[in-house]
Amino acid sequence: MSQKIDYLISPKWIAPVIPRSCILEDYSVAVSQSTISKILPTNEALKNFREAPNISLPDQLLTPGFINVHSHAAMSLLRGIADDRNMMDWLSNWIWPIEAKLVDPSFVLDGTQLAGVEMIMGGTTTVADNYFFPDASSSAFASLGMRAQIGIPVLKFKNNWASDERDHLEKGLTLLDRPQDNSLQSLSLSPHAPYSVTDEGFLRIAELAKKKKLRIQLHLHETNKEVQDSLDEWGLRPLARIENLGILNSSLQAIHLTQLNSHEIESLAKNEVHVGHCPESNMKLGSGICPISDLLAKNVNVAIGTDSAASNNDLDMLQEVRTASFLSKAVTNDATQIPAEVCLEMITLNGAKFLGLEHKIGSIEVGKLADLTAIDMSSIALKPVYNPLSQLIYNCTSANISNVWIDGKQILQNKELLKFKMPELERKVDIWKEKIMSLASKIS
Amino acid sequence: MSQKIDYLISPKWIAPVIPRSCILEDYSVAVSQSTISKILPTNEALKNFREAPNISLPDQLLTPGFINVHSHAAMSLLRGIADDRNMMDWLSNWIWPIEAKLVDPSFVLDGTQLAGVEMIMGGTTTVADNYFFPDASSSAFASLGMRAQIGIPVLKFKNNWASDERDHLEKGLTLLDRPQDNSLQSLSLSPHAPYSVTDEGFLRIAELAKKKKLRIQLHLHETNKEVQDSLDEWGLRPLARIENLGILNSSLQAIHLTQLNSHEIESLAKNEVHVGHCPESNMKLGSGICPISDLLAKNVNVAIGTDSAASNNDLDMLQEVRTASFLSKAVTNDATQIPAEVCLEMITLNGAKFLGLEHKIGSIEVGKLADLTAIDMSSIALKPVYNPLSQLIYNCTSANISNVWIDGKQILQNKELLKFKMPELERKVDIWKEKIMSLASKIS
Repeated sequence: MSQKIDYLISPKWIAPVIPRSCILEDYSVAVSQSTISKILPTNEALKNFREAPNISLPDQLLTPGFINVHSHAAMSLLRGIADDRNMMDWLSNWIWPIEAKLVDPSFVLDGTQLAGVEMIMGGTTTVADNYFFPDASSSAFASLGMRAQIGIPVLKFKNNWASDERDHLEKGLTLLDRPQDNSLQSLSLSPHAPYSVTDEGFLRIAELAKKKKLRIQLHLHETNKEVQDSLDEWGLRPLARIENLGILNSSLQAIHLTQLNSHEIESLAKNEVHVGHCPESNMKLGSGICPISDLLAKNVNVAIGTDSAASNNDLDMLQEVRTASFLSKAVTNDATQIPAEVCLEMITLNGAKFLGLEHKIGSIEVGKLADLTAIDMSSIALKPVYNPLSQLIYNCTSANISNVWIDGKQILQNKELLKFKMPELERKVDIWKEKIMSLASKIS
Repeated sequence: MSQKIDYLISPKWIAPVIPRSCILEDYSVAVSQSTISKILPTNEALKNFREAPNISLPDQLLTPGFINVHSHAAMSLLRGIADDRNMMDWLSNWIWPIEAKLVDPSFVLDGTQLAGVEMIMGGTTTVADNYFFPDASSSAFASLGMRAQIGIPVLKFKNNWASDERDHLEKGLTLLDRPQDNSLQSLSLSPHAPYSVTDEGFLRIAELAKKKKLRIQLHLHETNKEVQDSLDEWGLRPLARIENLGILNSSLQAIHLTQLNSHEIESLAKNEVHVGHCPESNMKLGSGICPISDLLAKNVNVAIGTDSAASNNDLDMLQEVRTASFLSKAVTNDATQIPAEVCLEMITLNGAKFLGLEHKIGSIEVGKLADLTAIDMSSIALKPVYNPLSQLIYNCTSANISNVWIDGKQILQNKELLKFKMPELERKVDIWKEKIMSLASKIS
């Protein structure tokens, strides 16, 4: 065989996601440049590509890299600062006051690196992020070699990045109009929530999204209070209001959706809205439960996000999707809901569709980019392995992730980050911790 | 100071559980024989006990060993064999047929060792177990140096251990009457469930429990179907029926309780019944949700169990209690429910009360037995640590457990089991896997 490849990965099992439920045993993936060039039985692969380096991973499962569709990465610096509080208490009395004092480009750069490191070590290769100073988060993800959709935040309230809605959009435009020099990144518009963006703002965002072909990421129906307040102020539920403003379509990435009636579920399906489900954040903040069984039954695309480490408190996609499955089984009283193969789709292929990147990532197929995650199943606590897919979803956590490739480059090797100065990051996190603790002691 | 000790443990933080919410920083625990003999500031400890070995654990949190109040340990051999099925399909078509073919003393010994190893590596020092061939599980826990309550199963149905209810009780009596040679173990009576034990059986068990001063562990109100069937057969909900049969008192360890009305919650409180909450098993099997916020509000003692790895699929007490907290916050829409300090109590002190061992274990206090778990918080994914208790409950999993002591003996050191032949166990698990897969292929 004359085809040149860069290297082979030869795990025990491959879960390619397409076709669904398929497990390939003793197959290898050949990678050329950033692309998956061949998937073939390992014994053939070793014969055909004798000169290429072979990364042999016995007892390991290879899956597409995980896609985290909703985070505020920099908030990892606030992990666990104020737990066990209801959402508006948590936001108004803790998170917003601390952010107002401290958030600047260096907070965002360091906090986003902290989150990025945790995500990569947990098998996540792509993230959709939303936070102030998006240019700083962009730099942080670039420094890690991680794929990202960077949201441009839009709020009517003043914050450390921008003074009002108009200022957010102006700053956003400078990002949109500058040449994009990183093929791993895309931009999105990120209006914060129906209660923090004006009608005028939404109309402008709808127009911009259409003109620039951008996705819009929006916290939507996160709590019952949000819905009630909207009824009081506009006489409309938030979803109806944004539909009127031209936001409800296949560009929309709607996050949370814990409050939905059957009419709204139909409307999400009809308008091909993408749903970002963040079960642990919703549970931890007591916000409500997104009815993903009903959404999936209507063929709505549902993907999974961790939200920030300030409300989770980890960025572990395997734990997140297991919680999604358990929660659905519990609220529907039906153990067949959200089985393991659908869980894996939600953190891979559905995430790719959510981002509009399903032609590039989300499954292990020839021609797709080599965003790959290997999971070590040799631990006694995972034995016996009858079905690696079931073990992956119901037993594994970040702790079992061994190797990660993004765009064909190996980023994590035997649980160690390659080419990244961890002690320097740890030192910076310690400095932020002291600053934040001293501030928090004045709040509490 | 003249007092002799065996060794010191000097972690960064101690969460003693009593007093509630307390975190001691830079304190040490002195251990003599099997007992905690002193808790004092580390700088004083190092002066006072210069000759004793000091186990220094910077960046680590020391807690009481975790107590898992409900398991069927040997079923770890069936981990993940039949996921995403409703409970009666799962039991009748998979678990029971496989058990009928394979369960014997060697299955129970090997499977229980597999589970015990996973539990110890996850910080669990005590377990309440319930399975056939209880003498084999007793041997398995003894081989690991693990504290255990061994349940004597009672069912009206034939199984590989006993032929009918009378046979179960006779075999149970031989265990009860033989001299107990292991101070780490106690026995309990373990009637399977209201639908699998006769009135006569319950009356005999109530009598035996009283005479021998034993706890009774019982699956109770696990599903709505159980409650409906009981109404059809006896005209009573199961809880009312067993109350009439003399089982509803402070000896009862009631497991699951996903179906409770307010009258039943009052009755559990009044009768001082101990509740074993297994959230992940209940969620995974779509059984229902135990209202632990309401139970705790009535001062019912609620402890946590993993159930078996066949319905979970891990035995990770930190993940289990986090799920318990998240689920309570979600169903009550109240993020203040089941805060981190109560979570820690549920997996330590409440477990000790549940077993009637609160005078011996469940907190780090002078005079109590040295059942201790250390958690390594140096991982970047746990940083920054503002509150180690919050980090423990909302971020840590089995993977962060570093060291475990049971009855003063170190069992786990830097994540490695001491004095236990792991390769031999792994070989045995592999053999069982082949047997079970060949059997399962005939079922599916």
